[in-house]
Amino acid sequence: MRNSNKLKIIPLGGMYEIGKNMTIIEYRDEIIVVDCGLTFPEEEMLGIDIVIPDISYLIKNQEKVKALVLTHGHEDHIGAIPYILQKIKMPIYGTPLTLGLLENKLKEHNLGAVDLNVVRAGDNVKIGKMEVEWISVNHSIPDSCALAIKTPLGYVYHSGDFKVDYTPISGEVIDLQRIAKIGEKGVIAMLGESTNVLREGYTISESKVGETFKRIFSAQSGNRIIIATFASNVHRVQQIINAAENFDRKVVLSGRSMLNVTETAQRLGYLKVKKGTIIDIKDMHKYKDEDLVLITTGSQGEPMSALTRIAYGEHRKIQLTPNDVIILSATPIPGNENDVSKVINKIMETGAKVIYESLTEIHVSGHACQEELKLILTLVKPKYFIPAHGEIRHLLKHASIAEDVGVKKENIFIMENGNCLELSQKEAKFTADVPAGNILVDGLGVGDVGNIVLRDRKHLSEDGLIVVVVSISKSEGKVISGPDIISRGFVYVRESGDLMDDARKVVKATLDKCDSKSITDWSSLKNNIRDDLKGFLFNQTKRNPMILPIIMEN
Amino acid sequence: MRNSNKLKIIPLGGMYEIGKNMTIIEYRDEIIVVDCGLTFPEEEMLGIDIVIPDISYLIKNQEKVKALVLTHGHEDHIGAIPYILQKIKMPIYGTPLTLGLLENKLKEHNLGAVDLNVVRAGDNVKIGKMEVEWISVNHSIPDSCALAIKTPLGYVYHSGDFKVDYTPISGEVIDLQRIAKIGEKGVIAMLGESTNVLREGYTISESKVGETFKRIFSAQSGNRIIIATFASNVHRVQQIINAAENFDRKVVLSGRSMLNVTETAQRLGYLKVKKGTIIDIKDMHKYKDEDLVLITTGSQGEPMSALTRIAYGEHRKIQLTPNDVIILSATPIPGNENDVSKVINKIMETGAKVIYESLTEIHVSGHACQEELKLILTLVKPKYFIPAHGEIRHLLKHASIAEDVGVKKENIFIMENGNCLELSQKEAKFTADVPAGNILVDGLGVGDVGNIVLRDRKHLSEDGLIVVVVSISKSEGKVISGPDIISRGFVYVRESGDLMDDARKVVKATLDKCDSKSITDWSSLKNNIRDDLKGFLFNQTKRNPMILPIIMEN
Repeated sequence: MRNSNKLKIIPLGGMYEIGKNMTIIEYRDEIIVVDCGLTFPEEEMLGIDIVIPDISYLIKNQEKVKALVLTHGHEDHIGAIPYILQKIKMPIYGTPLTLGLLENKLKEHNLGAVDLNVVRAGDNVKIGKMEVEWISVNHSIPDSCALAIKTPLGYVYHSGDFKVDYTPISGEVIDLQRIAKIGEKGVIAMLGESTNVLREGYTISESKVGETFKRIFSAQSGNRIIIATFASNVHRVQQIINAAENFDRKVVLSGRSMLNVTETAQRLGYLKVKKGTIIDIKDMHKYKDEDLVLITTGSQGEPMSALTRIAYGEHRKIQLTPNDVIILSATPIPGNENDVSKVINKIMETGAKVIYESLTEIHVSGHACQEELKLILTLVKPKYFIPAHGEIRHLLKHASIAEDVGVKKENIFIMENGNCLELSQKEAKFTADVPAGNILVDGLGVGDVGNIVLRDRKHLSEDGLIVVVVSISKSEGKVISGPDIISRGFVYVRESGDLMDDARKVVKATLDKCDSKSITDWSSLKNNIRDDLKGFLFNQTKRNPMILPIIMEN
Repeated sequence: MRNSNKLKIIPLGGMYEIGKNMTIIEYRDEIIVVDCGLTFPEEEMLGIDIVIPDISYLIKNQEKVKALVLTHGHEDHIGAIPYILQKIKMPIYGTPLTLGLLENKLKEHNLGAVDLNVVRAGDNVKIGKMEVEWISVNHSIPDSCALAIKTPLGYVYHSGDFKVDYTPISGEVIDLQRIAKIGEKGVIAMLGESTNVLREGYTISESKVGETFKRIFSAQSGNRIIIATFASNVHRVQQIINAAENFDRKVVLSGRSMLNVTETAQRLGYLKVKKGTIIDIKDMHKYKDEDLVLITTGSQGEPMSALTRIAYGEHRKIQLTPNDVIILSATPIPGNENDVSKVINKIMETGAKVIYESLTEIHVSGHACQEELKLILTLVKPKYFIPAHGEIRHLLKHASIAEDVGVKKENIFIMENGNCLELSQKEAKFTADVPAGNILVDGLGVGDVGNIVLRDRKHLSEDGLIVVVVSISKSEGKVISGPDIISRGFVYVRESGDLMDDARKVVKATLDKCDSKSITDWSSLKNNIRDDLKGFLFNQTKRNPMILPIIMEN
C-alpha cells in the first residue's frame, strides 16, 4: 500500500522567514498541525495588516486533520488561528496560558464553540495513531513547550521556541532530563528553531534583568519610572512588579494588550501580584512620581501603542516631565529600529531620561544561542534534522552547527514552506510540494489583495494619481465635455504657467487627432491619452503618476 | 552699532537628525556656509527622492554670502549643492577629491560655470573678514578636513566628520599638532560631530580591514570574490586592490558610482592601481573565478544597486554560482537592515557564501567614538561647545561628554536647525530663529511636495482608490449617465454578490435622494457620495479607500 508507514513533514510557514510558524506532521491518513502563527507585513506590502499561511493543503485534506497542537502563546505561533478556524475546524491543544491568550483572540473575532483542550507540560495526548507530549522549555512567555510526537517510526521532536535558563523567574528550568530520555528512545526527526543561531555562546538568564531593575529603581528613587516591554513577557512584568513592591511603588498598566495579557496571566496564576500593588490609571494622580511605576506597551515604537502616544504627547492620561525615567526593556525587532529611535528622541525632547538596551542590560532574548542549540541537538540525537524558524542564513547556519555536533550532512534538510519531506525507516526524501505562501489580510479581506493591488498601491504611493475625464457622445462621435483633470498625491509648481492647464491641452490634442470613428474605440483612446500625458508629465516633472482616463458615454 | 562684533552660528541642517549637514557662520555682514548636504527620505515621505535644507535665510541675505566651504565629499555634506546653486551663486572651496566628486555631480545636473576653488589641508583662505583653515582629519573618504575659521572673536572650530586613525591607509594621521595649536590660540566655539558618540572607546583603524581581506583572500583561493562597499570609501577600495594585486587577481568594478568615484580618485592620485589590475567587465569571461575580485556598490541593499541586481539574478553581466564568496564590507545604516538581510538571503539561495559584519571584522566606522571625541575636545578647549550631526540622543550624550572633559555646562548649547546662537566676547545667547526645515525633492520638483500630497499618497498606498463618475445635466437637474465606479489598489472579494455592484447602488441611492435643485449643488453632492460610500465600504471591508467623486456637467 502506497504511503503505508510513511511519515511526512510539511512546513506551511516559518521557513526562509521569521514568523508565521506552522508545520504539518502527517502519518498515513492522519495530520497533526503544530502551531498556526502570523507574521507582520513587509514594507512593500502596502496597507496590509497581517500575513498568514496558505492552508489549502489542510482544506483539501480536511478529513485527515486530527488536531492543532500549540507550543506557546506568541503571535507567530497562534496569531493565524482565528482566520484558519473560519475555513477548517479542529480540536486545539495547548497549555493554560497559551489557550488563555488564544481565547481572548477568539472573542475579539466573535468565534465561539472552539474545541479547546488544556494540557500541561508533562502531559501525553493520544491523537489518532500518534501521541503528543508537551515538554517544558524556557522562553520569553510562560508555559512554553517543546513537543515530542510519538509515531510508529519514532519520535518527531519539535523544539518550539526556547532558551536554556538555569535560573528562570517562575516555572521550571527546561526539562533537559525528559529531552534526554526522548533522545534515548529514538528521534527520527527534529525541527529546531533557529532565531538566534547567528549568536555565539549562551543567552543570558531572565533573572539578570531583575538585577538591573533593582539597580535602576534604587538610583532613580525620586523619579517616576516608566517601563515599556512586550505584554506577553509575563516574566519581565513579574520582575517589574517585584521591584515595585520592593521599592514601595504602585504599578499602573497602560496599553490594551498589557491590560489583557496581565489580567489573563494573573487569573491563571502566572503572575503573582500583592493586593493593592496595581492601581487603576485614573487613580495615578493621587500618587507622587517616586511612588509610581508605569508598565506600557510600545517597546517597538509601534505607531498606535501607549509609549508612542506618550512620547508624542498624545496620551490622554500620561504626560511626560523631566522627572520621568523611561526604560525600553526590549530590543528592536529588525525593521523597527527607526521607529524605536524616533520614540527615544521624542521622549528626550521632553527632558525625560531614556534608558535603552545599548546603554544597560535591560533586556535578554528568549531564544537559544549556538551553545544551547548544540546542547539540545546533542540530547535529542535526531536521525534527520530540519532547521526551522529562520531566514535561509539562519537555517544554513543551524545546519552547519548540527553537522558539527554529529548529525550526518546527508540527513540534514533545508526546507522551504510547502516542501514535503517523506520519512521511512530507511530513508528521507522530498516528494511533491504542497501549496504554501503568504495570504495577506487587509481589514476583513483575507487573501483578496494580491500583486496587482500591491503594485497599484506602490505606484500611487510614489507619484500619486491623475484622473482624466471626458464625455463622449457615441452616436455623434464627438467630445461633449472635458477633458477635465483631477490629481491626488501629485503636484508640481512650475516657474511659468499652470502644469494642469498644459496637461489638459495635451489630452485635448490627443482627442483632436481622432476622427468620429476612432474616438469611439475607447480602449485605444484611453491608451493614447495615457501615453501622451505620461510622456508630457515625465518630461516636465520627471515623475510618473498613475494616469486613469475615464470616458463617459452620453 | 547693532551686531557689531557679533558672531552668529546658525545650523540649517544636521541638528536633531543624521544628514543634511549645513551650518552658517556669520560675522557682521558676512556669511560663510560650511557644507551643504542632503539626507535620504524617511519612510513616510512616500515617493520622495532626497531631502535638502531650507535656504531661505541665505536667499534673503544673498549679498552677505561670501563662500561655501566644504569639509569632505560625502553626500550628507555636498549632496544638496546642485539644488542650492540654482537659487544662489557663491564661490565654493574644498579639497581636490571633494571638488572632484562635486564636479561629477554638477555635470549630471548640467550646471556649468561654478566658481570652484581647490584648497589642501594646511591651506588658509581669507574670505572677507574671516579666514578659513583646512586641517587634515581621518575619515571614511580621503581628503577630509576639519575647519578652523578665524574670526575677530577667536576661532570657530568645525570638526567635520572624523575619526582618529593612527595607522591610516594613505594620507596622513589627523593633524593633532595643528588642532592643539588652534586650541592654544583660542577657540570661541566648537561644532563637534556626534555620529558615534553612543559608542565607548576608540574606532578601529581602517588598516584592520586590510588584514581581514588578506585572511579571506588566502582562505578562498579557489573562489571568485565579490566585495560590496561604499564607492566613496576610497581607502577600502585601495585595500581591496592591494589584496587583489598581492594575490594575483584582476579587479572588476561594477555599479555606476563605483566606476565614477574610482575614476576620479585614480585621476587625482588618491587611488594607486598597477597597470592592468583593473579590467573591463566585458573581459571578465577571459579569467577564471580564482583570478577575479569584483568590487560593487549595493552594500546597503539599495534596490537598483549592482549587488541587489546580482543577488536577484537581474544583472546582465554577473551571475552568481556556488563558487562565489560575497563580502559585505559595510554596516547597514539604520533603516536599511531589512534590505541588507534580504540581499544576504537571496545570495545564499544561489549557494554562494556570504561574509558579513556580524561574522568577521570586515568593516570599521569612519566616525569618532567617545574617547576620540574627548581627545579633540581636550585639544580644542572651546569656550562654547555645540554638539552637531546627530539626533537629540546623540547631541545630549555629546554634551555630557563635553561637560566631563571640562566645558562649562552653561557654555554648551543644544541647537535645533534654524536656531541662531549669537556670540560676543562676554556671552552667548539665542536670538531669533531663522527659517529651516526639510525641502523635499521629487523628480524635478524641489519643495512642491508638502504635507497634503504626502498625506494623499499615504492614504492611496494603504487602501487604494475608488473613483465615482456621474454625468449630470445642470439645465435638466438630473443624472444623464453613471454612476460608474473604478477602483485601483482596492479589491475585495465577497462570498456573495459583487461589492462594486452594491457600491454603485449605494451611490445611486444617494443621487435618488436629491431633487432637481440639490443635485446641482455639486460640493455637497460630492460630500454625500463620499460619506455614504465610505460608510458602506468600511462596514463591508473594514477598509478606507480614498473616494474621488467626479461630476461631469453636460
